[in-house]
Amino acid sequence: MAEQDPPKAEQGFPVSEGEGEKGPSKSALKKALKEKEKAEKAAKRAAAEEAARKEREVAEANDISKDDYGELPRDGELPKETFGTEGEKVSHGGPDGAKEVGGPHVLFTAVVKNARSQSAKLAFLVFQHGFSTIQAVIAVSDTLSKQMVKFAGGIPSQSVVVVHALVKKPKEPVKSCTIQNLEAHIKRIYVESPADSQLPLQVEDAEQPIPAEGEEAQEEGGRPIVTLNTRLNNRVIDLRARHNFAIGRIKYGVTKLFAEFLDAKGFTGIQTPKLLGSASEGGANVFEVTYFATKAFLAQSPQLYKQMLIAARFQKVFEVGPVFRAENSNTARHLTEFTGLDLEMEYNGHYHEVVSLLEELMLYIFNGLKTRYKRETDLVRAVYNVPEFRLPEAGKVPRLPFSEGIKMLRDAGVEVNDYDDLSTPDEKKLGALVLEKYGTDFYVLDKFPLAVRPFYTMPDMTTYGKDPNDANAGYSNSYDFFMRGQEIMSGAQRIHKAEFLRKRMKEHVTPVDPESEGLRDYVKAFSYGCNKHAGGGLGLERIVMLWLGLPNVRLASLFPRDPQRLSP
Amino acid sequence: MAEQDPPKAEQGFPVSEGEGEKGPSKSALKKALKEKEKAEKAAKRAAAEEAARKEREVAEANDISKDDYGELPRDGELPKETFGTEGEKVSHGGPDGAKEVGGPHVLFTAVVKNARSQSAKLAFLVFQHGFSTIQAVIAVSDTLSKQMVKFAGGIPSQSVVVVHALVKKPKEPVKSCTIQNLEAHIKRIYVESPADSQLPLQVEDAEQPIPAEGEEAQEEGGRPIVTLNTRLNNRVIDLRARHNFAIGRIKYGVTKLFAEFLDAKGFTGIQTPKLLGSASEGGANVFEVTYFATKAFLAQSPQLYKQMLIAARFQKVFEVGPVFRAENSNTARHLTEFTGLDLEMEYNGHYHEVVSLLEELMLYIFNGLKTRYKRETDLVRAVYNVPEFRLPEAGKVPRLPFSEGIKMLRDAGVEVNDYDDLSTPDEKKLGALVLEKYGTDFYVLDKFPLAVRPFYTMPDMTTYGKDPNDANAGYSNSYDFFMRGQEIMSGAQRIHKAEFLRKRMKEHVTPVDPESEGLRDYVKAFSYGCNKHAGGGLGLERIVMLWLGLPNVRLASLFPRDPQRLSP
Repeated sequence: MAEQDPPKAEQGFPVSEGEGEKGPSKSALKKALKEKEKAEKAAKRAAAEEAARKEREVAEANDISKDDYGELPRDGELPKETFGTEGEKVSHGGPDGAKEVGGPHVLFTAVVKNARSQSAKLAFLVFQHGFSTIQAVIAVSDTLSKQMVKFAGGIPSQSVVVVHALVKKPKEPVKSCTIQNLEAHIKRIYVESPADSQLPLQVEDAEQPIPAEGEEAQEEGGRPIVTLNTRLNNRVIDLRARHNFAIGRIKYGVTKLFAEFLDAKGFTGIQTPKLLGSASEGGANVFEVTYFATKAFLAQSPQLYKQMLIAARFQKVFEVGPVFRAENSNTARHLTEFTGLDLEMEYNGHYHEVVSLLEELMLYIFNGLKTRYKRETDLVRAVYNVPEFRLPEAGKVPRLPFSEGIKMLRDAGVEVNDYDDLSTPDEKKLGALVLEKYGTDFYVLDKFPLAVRPFYTMPDMTTYGKDPNDANAGYSNSYDFFMRGQEIMSGAQRIHKAEFLRKRMKEHVTPVDPESEGLRDYVKAFSYGCNKHAGGGLGLERIVMLWLGLPNVRLASLFPRDPQRLSP
Repeated sequence: MAEQDPPKAEQGFPVSEGEGEKGPSKSALKKALKEKEKAEKAAKRAAAEEAARKEREVAEANDISKDDYGELPRDGELPKETFGTEGEKVSHGGPDGAKEVGGPHVLFTAVVKNARSQSAKLAFLVFQHGFSTIQAVIAVSDTLSKQMVKFAGGIPSQSVVVVHALVKKPKEPVKSCTIQNLEAHIKRIYVESPADSQLPLQVEDAEQPIPAEGEEAQEEGGRPIVTLNTRLNNRVIDLRARHNFAIGRIKYGVTKLFAEFLDAKGFTGIQTPKLLGSASEGGANVFEVTYFATKAFLAQSPQLYKQMLIAARFQKVFEVGPVFRAENSNTARHLTEFTGLDLEMEYNGHYHEVVSLLEELMLYIFNGLKTRYKRETDLVRAVYNVPEFRLPEAGKVPRLPFSEGIKMLRDAGVEVNDYDDLSTPDEKKLGALVLEKYGTDFYVLDKFPLAVRPFYTMPDMTTYGKDPNDANAGYSNSYDFFMRGQEIMSGAQRIHKAEFLRKRMKEHVTPVDPESEGLRDYVKAFSYGCNKHAGGGLGLERIVMLWLGLPNVRLASLFPRDPQRLSP
């Protein structure tokens, strides 16, 4: 009996249980049952699909609007005759184009902010273009089919559509839209590019502030509070939040105002190399690159190159470009790649001429942001409710000697040493004290201790060399700029003679070798005759963060990079 | 006898040869002689130095000008009272400051272009500041010592000096200087920063054109023709050549005009990351970076990010930033790091709207260079004697379909295939044909074969899919811009729907995986609803090179990078 084949279940007939020990196993029976059900379902589905297809065909044949909606062909070129019939005033552009062309007929491309069917005969949509939103309505009529209303009401949010509409004054102002006194009555609507119906992040959620540091994602007022990490993972959607575009505009504004001011002062914009043959500014915190058969390193700043260009008689230079820091800092104010706003200039008198120019530059940027980017600034402040940035009265920027800053901190009960650099909490404290005393969120600290500055910093010669036991004692001709108690710029007069530079490199707290590969050319540049010069380097993302009072510098970077993040 | 000590020569008495076998060796004798000579020399030198010191002391005591010249202290701060006594009109600035202040007394900082003593009583110097040079004279008088004249006449070329002078009309115009109707009579002169007396490269040599490719350094007309390599090794001095500063100014001009035009059109300037998590645009030609415990890659272009920003509703974006190409090409037109001028924009009608804007942009740049940077352009053309760049008449840029370009080449006897990309010689030939036919060095080639463009390029839908055996047959909505027959820009309409993009990635000549780490986020961005868009990427150094007709792209980079060069 063991040799006998078990009965076959392949014909699709189920074999009932209990037909003897040699019958099919329970699992085989289950499988067979399932397959039968599957086949039946498939047949049903096919029949239903066929019926639906026929119905659609009939419906389409009867659809008076069938040419007036649908998905556009892949290359998205609309036949010209679709729109703009004789006598109509049409405009490409935002949904408020009607105002521009002055007529009631408009043709525009827009984003569907949301779409909902009110009934089988009526749907409402909200279109968005840039910062503007407008309400649209579509209703069944003699010339507009219910299929079209259904299609319009079902377009997924965030899809891009091309719309032909008649613009009318609504009965009541549309309070939920930025354009309140116009309403678009849809005549034709085509989907240029559909959005998935399920997005990994809702734009409306991205429009909420990020949770405070360390806080978990949570619901609040019906909306989830989405973590920064989730937002950054879906940055393309996150950036669609209006305040994020506003941050992008403000950031651009800072670079524009920076270049505008310096251009008027006769500066030359430059591009210095980011690939260096050696880790010139000190070996730590520098990214290594495989460069053909050798190694290269990513520039941590344009410092040495902008100075070499001063030695090359470029007189005044500035650069807007990426800088790279291989610092394993996972804080709210560190990035591994950010944008440096650097400048360097000759001068003939005192280095305070340069400090004055830098103060003037920052005031120019701040005032430009206040006037030209007010809308964007307000938009961000509506989300991140931070006090307005306070500027010094009458444009007089407090410029405090470092020793004065130390005194203010001591008077406030903070224990600090005369010649130590300030810690971040001490900087913030000092910022608060300056705000209290001078009423400004922007100020300058001048004459830092020599020992805490880089080797190329010019010592204050009235204090240099006075201590025979410590070549790094005393102060230096260097300065930091602060916004809301945080450093945004570091700068100094630089040493402009090779001999003294070599001396300082050797006697510095962290000595460097003037003959090393990465520094040899730099040092030599100052043995060819070089004028006095000073400059500074600003962090673009920090300026934006502190101007707006954002809780994290990543919000001021389009696609931030930190030790944990290299994508998107 | 063997135990006896040899006679000592230590007392300094020479021991003559032949005094017996046991006498000092020849070398010991020589040594003793030399030491004696050395001691005598040292004594003589000391005496001479002492005499000279006394002489100097006396001379200094008698030097009526001793406060009016010398080397400045290290921090280079001049005591204010040194200059600008009551009633004098003084100016800081270039040597032509006199014109600005309107008085005969000037105080200026300048570079010593050269200094020579005519006699013990008279010396001539030429000062330089920016593009200006002025002759200076210093002569012994009742109030000016011969020591001071000697000092001034001996200042090494390229030193930076601070000068107080009386400016007078010379007897005859000074033809060798740019300021011909003024001559500076030196009253005080201080060296702010001395140049080495032997420089590795003379600025005057750097002012000659580079030798033609492959040519060795050689003398010509009394001056050596210095190789490009020697110049680049000493780039700080090389950049002091007036035409090199002019190239730097023109390069800045291009970036400024680029941004100015796009800003007026409502574009937003952006900074996209240069550190990427994976080699997204294809694995070849990309530099690898050690990124903490993992790897990163340097961006070859902002392509994917600028498109993602269009998907993020930024509408119109541009970027000026470094791009990195790990291409082992050692030619006159390749760099491993250069500056990309990138832009991307939404549009609503036809992609030719974007091509028109790009043509307008280039004409804006060219016309800006012609008017605002004429002096600089002329200066460079005086060194590199290249025909002026010819612009299309009436601003009408020839926009030729690729197929038309092929036809022109064939008519000229060049063998080319319909759908192959053009080789560099073919491009140059076509440039010459276009120049002949249309009288312009600038033109556009449109509708490239689909097969030779990247995966994200939108096919021309009138030809796409017509060949069932080849998904890459036909043309595409893409274009290249040319200057003097060389490509300066590549651009296209991009695919803006995820589904079609995935299809094209798979069927492309070089297929890529839409689900790969570096492309997943990019592809997803187009499933969130994205408008039609197109753009392009320009090479800044190439534009400068071709505008001026420079023989090597390295001349258009401040500190060029190629497979062989990472410094200075």
